Amino acid sequence: MGVSGCGKTTIGKEIAKALGIDFYDADDFHPQSNIDKMVKGISLQDDDRWPWLDVLSKKINYWNTKSKAVLACSALKESYRKRLAINNPDIQWVFLSGTFELIKNRMEQRQSHFMKADLLRSQFKTLETPNYGLCLDINNTVDEIVKKALKELKKMSKSNFGVFGLGVMGKSIAFNLASKGHNLSVYNRGKGTEKYVVRDFLKDNESVKNILGFNSVSEFVNSIQQPRKILLMVNAGATVDVVLQTLLPYLSAEDIIIDGGNSHYLDTKRRIELLKTKGLYFIGCGISGGEEGAKNGPSMMPSGDLKAYSQIAPILESIAAKDKNNKPCCQYIGKEGSGHFVKMAHNGIEYAEMQLLAEVFSIMSKTMTYETIAETLTSWQKGNLSSYLLDITSKILQKKEGNEYVLDLILDQAGNKGTGSWSSKAALELGIPNTMMTSAVFARYISSFKNEREKLALKIKSNTEKPKKLNLKDLKKAYQFARIINHHQGFALILEATNTYSWQVSLSEIARIWTNGCIIKSKFMESCVKIFEVNQSLLEDKTIISVLNDSEKASVKILKYALSSRVASPCLFASHDYWVAMSTNKLPANLIQAQRDFFGAHTYKRIDKPFNENFHTNWS
Amino acid sequence: MGVSGCGKTTIGKEIAKALGIDFYDADDFHPQSNIDKMVKGISLQDDDRWPWLDVLSKKINYWNTKSKAVLACSALKESYRKRLAINNPDIQWVFLSGTFELIKNRMEQRQSHFMKADLLRSQFKTLETPNYGLCLDINNTVDEIVKKALKELKKMSKSNFGVFGLGVMGKSIAFNLASKGHNLSVYNRGKGTEKYVVRDFLKDNESVKNILGFNSVSEFVNSIQQPRKILLMVNAGATVDVVLQTLLPYLSAEDIIIDGGNSHYLDTKRRIELLKTKGLYFIGCGISGGEEGAKNGPSMMPSGDLKAYSQIAPILESIAAKDKNNKPCCQYIGKEGSGHFVKMAHNGIEYAEMQLLAEVFSIMSKTMTYETIAETLTSWQKGNLSSYLLDITSKILQKKEGNEYVLDLILDQAGNKGTGSWSSKAALELGIPNTMMTSAVFARYISSFKNEREKLALKIKSNTEKPKKLNLKDLKKAYQFARIINHHQGFALILEATNTYSWQVSLSEIARIWTNGCIIKSKFMESCVKIFEVNQSLLEDKTIISVLNDSEKASVKILKYALSSRVASPCLFASHDYWVAMSTNKLPANLIQAQRDFFGAHTYKRIDKPFNENFHTNWS
Repeated sequence: MGVSGCGKTTIGKEIAKALGIDFYDADDFHPQSNIDKMVKGISLQDDDRWPWLDVLSKKINYWNTKSKAVLACSALKESYRKRLAINNPDIQWVFLSGTFELIKNRMEQRQSHFMKADLLRSQFKTLETPNYGLCLDINNTVDEIVKKALKELKKMSKSNFGVFGLGVMGKSIAFNLASKGHNLSVYNRGKGTEKYVVRDFLKDNESVKNILGFNSVSEFVNSIQQPRKILLMVNAGATVDVVLQTLLPYLSAEDIIIDGGNSHYLDTKRRIELLKTKGLYFIGCGISGGEEGAKNGPSMMPSGDLKAYSQIAPILESIAAKDKNNKPCCQYIGKEGSGHFVKMAHNGIEYAEMQLLAEVFSIMSKTMTYETIAETLTSWQKGNLSSYLLDITSKILQKKEGNEYVLDLILDQAGNKGTGSWSSKAALELGIPNTMMTSAVFARYISSFKNEREKLALKIKSNTEKPKKLNLKDLKKAYQFARIINHHQGFALILEATNTYSWQVSLSEIARIWTNGCIIKSKFMESCVKIFEVNQSLLEDKTIISVLNDSEKASVKILKYALSSRVASPCLFASHDYWVAMSTNKLPANLIQAQRDFFGAHTYKRIDKPFNENFHTNWS
Repeated sequence: MGVSGCGKTTIGKEIAKALGIDFYDADDFHPQSNIDKMVKGISLQDDDRWPWLDVLSKKINYWNTKSKAVLACSALKESYRKRLAINNPDIQWVFLSGTFELIKNRMEQRQSHFMKADLLRSQFKTLETPNYGLCLDINNTVDEIVKKALKELKKMSKSNFGVFGLGVMGKSIAFNLASKGHNLSVYNRGKGTEKYVVRDFLKDNESVKNILGFNSVSEFVNSIQQPRKILLMVNAGATVDVVLQTLLPYLSAEDIIIDGGNSHYLDTKRRIELLKTKGLYFIGCGISGGEEGAKNGPSMMPSGDLKAYSQIAPILESIAAKDKNNKPCCQYIGKEGSGHFVKMAHNGIEYAEMQLLAEVFSIMSKTMTYETIAETLTSWQKGNLSSYLLDITSKILQKKEGNEYVLDLILDQAGNKGTGSWSSKAALELGIPNTMMTSAVFARYISSFKNEREKLALKIKSNTEKPKKLNLKDLKKAYQFARIINHHQGFALILEATNTYSWQVSLSEIARIWTNGCIIKSKFMESCVKIFEVNQSLLEDKTIISVLNDSEKASVKILKYALSSRVASPCLFASHDYWVAMSTNKLPANLIQAQRDFFGAHTYKRIDKPFNENFHTNWS
């Protein structure tokens, strides 16, 4: 922008050329009525200009959705510029500034561009200098002006995505986003031990040019195009609320905040509602894959407002893992906190999968060396049992530090960050018997009582029996059996939640986005995708039932082995007992109902009467 | 009260005689200064009366704490009566009313009581007739006046305790209270199916004279002496909040509301805080014992403000069950919702105890008839395994309806009212591995999937093996083993809560109040009282460890039997696996830590380094 003769066309074309984008001249978009007037020598009034500016505004908006463009337009008045900026908050203004004398002299030297000094004077009178954007002194060579423009424009350019928080997962996701070509702003607080987190991150990723780093929240927010898309990668819990309160003053209507942490699904629901009252969107997005997954392609479970999600979908999908059909492992889950619920269920399944491997390892190590265990697991990895967790377990078993296995140096107290117990609590609330994930959580708790265990270990009768030979085929079958039950229980929890909360989640889609990128990715998960296309439960599938039937005896043998060899195996037990109970026509729950009626007059239902009737017996 | 000569002494003495309480004349309590004036013939002024009235007020207060009394006092002015009523809101006023002529004539007939007509006229002038209390016309015979007084006074008498809600438990507790001689007000709404609940309750308990029944909340509240003591016996959950809002407008400062339902301990904490802001007290009181216990003596677990509790302690203790030393099974637990927490843990233990019996029954019924099972359980009842739940199970197994066992007519879907899942959730939150109560809750959930079970039962390979002979000695040992672990886990949950929330609960006292009145009363609970006098955990007791050691093999045998005979036994499995894990020096939790560090860089602790340091391995 600038007065006639300031060099808009010359400079504009050079900038467009350097950026590899199109150049346009605003005068080429006048409506016919204006052209007619100009041809007749009638000078344009503001009323003539509005329709023209509106056309330009629409064009700018269109160019922005494509590869952007440079537009030369005098835009002398603030009101003109405002009209152009409607729907285009991201226009980068470049004002070519020069004195009346300089421009008059230059114009007089160029005979081809004849203009009266009067007209120039009138332009200067109309000009309202903007107090924003980039102001370039035209008393320089074209080359110098363009060079400066390009340098400054780069500084001013806004990111199209922000990542708030550069922990292990935040860094990995940010790297992933930037390496996919997204213009990124990243933020981390610059205090205490985190003083140089941003600086170091930028240094470590110098090869990736499109990252802007900030320690200031306001600068971070302002560096992002509106409507802003900001991904929070902070600790779940109260921190998310604190961060939201910190961000709120700087946000604008329609901005979208995405929570990529392991937040509780009810917190996510609450936050969606809170931000909605402020004209903002909140998307809860479960992200699985650990550090590696986040960096190279995680599995993503977003939920919340669908319209807001559709705006971030291309970005999230671009960084997600791809399934075997090259579809992104990122799928809109549903409304409210459904995404975080699904991620929570994922972690519940993960807890049990990990515990099962720990039990299998524990049973094997009664008679086998780490080497042979690792060999066995690696052989399993070639077949139907193949999974990421099995794979890393083999690798862990082989890792040495000098002559010692690293595993032998690790304290046997398992930590947890809560999602496992949340899953179990959700199961208890929803009435779904998730016995395996709950056993896995409790197994971690038991491990934490190390002192008590050491003391008790000294008090028990020592097991003098020599360990029997372990049948590895049985163990493999028992492990497969338990994994099926675990997946069944996990998906049953999601099914109950989606029915209870009217989420309309597709189990098949969930399984699909879990086939890659996430911690529980496995060959079996591929089967789940297909089974859930036609069933709502794994136990409705014939093949599954046949596998369970075929492995039940092996499971019995392994459990008897565990009993004889004193190997705690809560998840293997839970899987077997669940299967037995679920396939038992008549359970002793009638006795429990009788007891409840005996002491509390809770009444019971009868098999020989309609089930809507309740009965009470005077027992004593 | 009334003018001189109205008959206060005559009527008062007769009433006192009929009620079996003391009679006092106010004139006997004048201070010496007043007596001196009266002796000198100087008439008393109001300033002379205040100290006298204050003495009387204190006396009334004292008499009220004892067996009450009748006081004759002219109390002509409202201000005198107000002075007397300070600290004595429950005075029942009886005004003896007669005309000037009548009294003058009667006085003239009684030469012994000489009084000038002038003085009587002055008394009538001073008299401010009360618009409350009982007004008796003295133009009747003494007998008639006294009879009417007694009849009306009974109607006006205030209760010293209120029970809000006459469900199964409310009725039983109310009966218990009334039969212990407490003057009781009871309330139930008089709408819909509950229209005649109060009327029917009063009818059913006509033999108990001291119950007043209400369908109106305001009349109910007003019928109770201040500070009021009102026990809520309503459904736990939102109902309690609704009832509190209904009661609040009618309550006065210092009133005490007791919640006898199975409320969640955090709700109780919240309600204590809410009522405190209104100058009221809220006591959460866990009550166990079912219908029978509530009627004849439940186990009671009150918590909240200790000062408020001390006011209701005599009442609660009077209706509680008695332990073997005749001490009430009612003990102040601690602050906040600790009472409801302890009751919740009680129910968690109860869930597992019931499930264990269901499993034992289920295992037995593979080879035994109900009759022989009942016989066996009855024989167990004679020894260390004796418990209320075992006792009722024997009885249930023998109950027939015509030729059929009632048990066989009961649908095998176990219901629940939430406290079991609350216990399990609390365990998950507090990091305590309560595997047994949680397995019991899940077993109930599994039973509810009746349709799925029936369908799956048709799809499994039928178990063609003939059931093996069951060793009942092993089963008995396995059952005892599991009960010990169950009690250990339950008390461990309470211990963790009391440490976490600084409740200072005594485990021994908890065990003591559970030795009678409640559903889990048992011979073993008596042992727990002693063990917890010196230990904080059952697993610290030598005898317990020796019993567990001695029964471990039996437990293994029974679990193998259950595996072979396809009997779901989640609680027996959980008990055994917990014991094995807790007495295992080295668990495979190190593998879980390695996995977590592998995929999430969660770090781990090493056995060869200080435990405050965290380590990370680059695994791949």
